[in-house]
Amino acid sequence: MKKSGLIILAFSGILSASLVDDAMKAGLKPIPSSDSELKKLIDNPNNPLNEAKVMLGKRLYFEPRLSKSNLISCNTCHNLAIGGVDGVESAVGHKWTTNPHHLNSPTVFNAVFMDKQFWDGRAKDLEEQAQGPMQAEPEMAISKEMAVNRIASMPEYKSEFKKAFGDDNITFKKIADAIGAFERTLVTPSRFDNFLLGDDSALSKDEKEGLRVFISKGCSTCHNGVGIGGSMQKFPVIKSYKYADIGDFKGDKNGMVKTPTLRNILKTAPYFHNGVVWDIKEAIDIMGETQLGIELTKAEIDSIAKFFNSLNGKIPDISYPELPAVTLKTPKPDIN
Amino acid sequence: MKKSGLIILAFSGILSASLVDDAMKAGLKPIPSSDSELKKLIDNPNNPLNEAKVMLGKRLYFEPRLSKSNLISCNTCHNLAIGGVDGVESAVGHKWTTNPHHLNSPTVFNAVFMDKQFWDGRAKDLEEQAQGPMQAEPEMAISKEMAVNRIASMPEYKSEFKKAFGDDNITFKKIADAIGAFERTLVTPSRFDNFLLGDDSALSKDEKEGLRVFISKGCSTCHNGVGIGGSMQKFPVIKSYKYADIGDFKGDKNGMVKTPTLRNILKTAPYFHNGVVWDIKEAIDIMGETQLGIELTKAEIDSIAKFFNSLNGKIPDISYPELPAVTLKTPKPDIN
Repeated sequence: MKKSGLIILAFSGILSASLVDDAMKAGLKPIPSSDSELKKLIDNPNNPLNEAKVMLGKRLYFEPRLSKSNLISCNTCHNLAIGGVDGVESAVGHKWTTNPHHLNSPTVFNAVFMDKQFWDGRAKDLEEQAQGPMQAEPEMAISKEMAVNRIASMPEYKSEFKKAFGDDNITFKKIADAIGAFERTLVTPSRFDNFLLGDDSALSKDEKEGLRVFISKGCSTCHNGVGIGGSMQKFPVIKSYKYADIGDFKGDKNGMVKTPTLRNILKTAPYFHNGVVWDIKEAIDIMGETQLGIELTKAEIDSIAKFFNSLNGKIPDISYPELPAVTLKTPKPDIN
Repeated sequence: MKKSGLIILAFSGILSASLVDDAMKAGLKPIPSSDSELKKLIDNPNNPLNEAKVMLGKRLYFEPRLSKSNLISCNTCHNLAIGGVDGVESAVGHKWTTNPHHLNSPTVFNAVFMDKQFWDGRAKDLEEQAQGPMQAEPEMAISKEMAVNRIASMPEYKSEFKKAFGDDNITFKKIADAIGAFERTLVTPSRFDNFLLGDDSALSKDEKEGLRVFISKGCSTCHNGVGIGGSMQKFPVIKSYKYADIGDFKGDKNGMVKTPTLRNILKTAPYFHNGVVWDIKEAIDIMGETQLGIELTKAEIDSIAKFFNSLNGKIPDISYPELPAVTLKTPKPDIN
């Protein structure tokens, strides 16, 4: 009994080792477990990370005075309490305006691993992305000048910019850079990473089976890399997306759409660029049809969905910031 | 030299001791420094505090799924990052609706020390208050049933209600009770408390002078108690409020209005029930005129404003919560 038990154990070890190999060959990559390797991966040479910048960025991420109304912060649509999203189909911003293209807010968690930012990939990195929603009329609706004037009017911020950037001259670019730096730290290692890094027990039998299906059916053709997504891809490839008429988004000028991350996917409903699908199993089914041209069985869909449990990551500990008080110099909010 | 130094020290000690006495006689009271005394003061026999309830309450306080839209939480209008308020004149809620009476969101910090809740004092305590904004159409706009269905649809909440209340039956009252319990812990002891408790060095010379003016001019007639405010008072008493035509709020049926707390007052602009005054000095000036029938000098106003610095309290450390994921049973958001 003992001997055959050992043999089975060894055999299952071999099988899993081969599954890790298959996953790696399919382009899936772990979040590094070493801090220095991770830092290398998430850093931006054009906006080098430092602790003061990340701390300042966190404050600015939660800063509602960065919106015209004083009511909306980055965290409104990318709420760190609920998977880095807003839990609605289409983003809602200034004056309760929904996104004009019916676009869903993507998660900020692990966004650092995406090749590009926004659904059409028009921003090269998080720093560039952060400039967009602040200024967009249906989002935070603030001008660059107003954003700078608001922040610069609160003396506590001056010393924080000095610590973060070496000088206390507050610019819109520095505001976005600090926010980008904070967002780079929002990574959520999960059991799947432990598995790829060699811990065979990190995934259950069902999850391993789901991973096998995920790879063998071709999901990892697009959902790969550390981000398990993040590259620009054609959508749809084979068959029309059944909810294509909701919103007018057609991708970038070549019809390419950013592949969303699957990390924490079970926490970021609703799904797809227009956020009309709430059931992950329906989303998997649609992906099979539109992208791979296959009809996944119910068992295969269930199996893939089980694998997704292993992508629920550890959310970083975030202390809620205490932000500075406005002064008489602070430009007043305008809710109109 | 040494001897006269000691005499001066003793003399200044006597003067401050008499100032503490004057403050106490004027009805000003410190937040107790002992945890057990504080607990006694903030607890509610009808909703006894326990750690699990406070933790659950914190999660529900930040829970946007408690609004019809999924977008608004208690923290939207009582933002713990910016003094427990929203930094706008008049509260903005569901569908970007402003408060129909042009009422300003009062701070949640130290609200436990208020005799009653809401500007017209219509709720007897925080638990009763918490039920209001969730259901109010211009605020979170959710029905009791929908609130319960949303929360009960997320299995993680079930065990938390069990821990907090002894059973896992989720009701609207329990949701509000948990939120109220959390809010009871949001007290912010300040240097002023240290001063009242015997630390003569806790206030600067200017702040002590400001406190003297504050008491001698009669401000503490209404702004007293642990909350430095919180009782129902006539407003205006002597002279019409110069911005009385902004909004239609006239107080309770007897024209009584809740005195706002002065704790953290320098962080909670704009001021008054209709939030139209941004400058604390203008607010002090108006209060002298309307409530006391006196014209305060610029020097007196400056002095009182300096005293207010000592009311900036220590905000409790709050870790931003990770909330449960929605399930297929969770009622969908409705932004309309």
